[in-house]
Amino acid sequence: MPTELLSDDEVQALLDELPDWDIENGKLHRNFQFEDFQTAFGFMTSVALAAEAAGHHPEWWNTYNKVEVWLSTHSAGGITTKDADLAREMDRLAR
Amino acid sequence: MPTELLSDDEVQALLDELPDWDIENGKLHRNFQFEDFQTAFGFMTSVALAAEAAGHHPEWWNTYNKVEVWLSTHSAGGITTKDADLAREMDRLAR
Repeated sequence: MPTELLSDDEVQALLDELPDWDIENGKLHRNFQFEDFQTAFGFMTSVALAAEAAGHHPEWWNTYNKVEVWLSTHSAGGITTKDADLAREMDRLAR
Repeated sequence: MPTELLSDDEVQALLDELPDWDIENGKLHRNFQFEDFQTAFGFMTSVALAAEAAGHHPEWWNTYNKVEVWLSTHSAGGITTKDADLAREMDRLAR
């Protein structure tokens, strides 16, 4: 069963639930900032393990203590529950 | 002693030495492609350890099996021997 796109209402509910995220170029988007490179890359490593287990991977950019993330589901052409789940997991791992 | 900027001739010699790299927006730049996310992130993890040890960190972007890298030395305002060393190390680790 293909993962289904979230409706506009569902995306809005997700943004209400996850206030640190917004939409950028049709993707779920957040900037993270950490103390230094070690903590930033430690976060990325935790996310990488979760992403690999879920079979759903982020698009992300890092320099030093900053990590910028864009989530969407290529096969569905937009934002799906897979992205919502990964965003929640990233918020959890960043705490 | 501050790290010194490479001269134009030194940058050209570096690009001759490292043919997979080019210059993008004044930074040393390369696209890497791997088999899958696991190998791409494994590479990033190896680079992260080397970067942390050297005290010099990359700017990079990843999605699935692709890793794009830009190297420059912020404190020097351009490309230095630190960037050359990290580029060489990344080439070695990607092999």
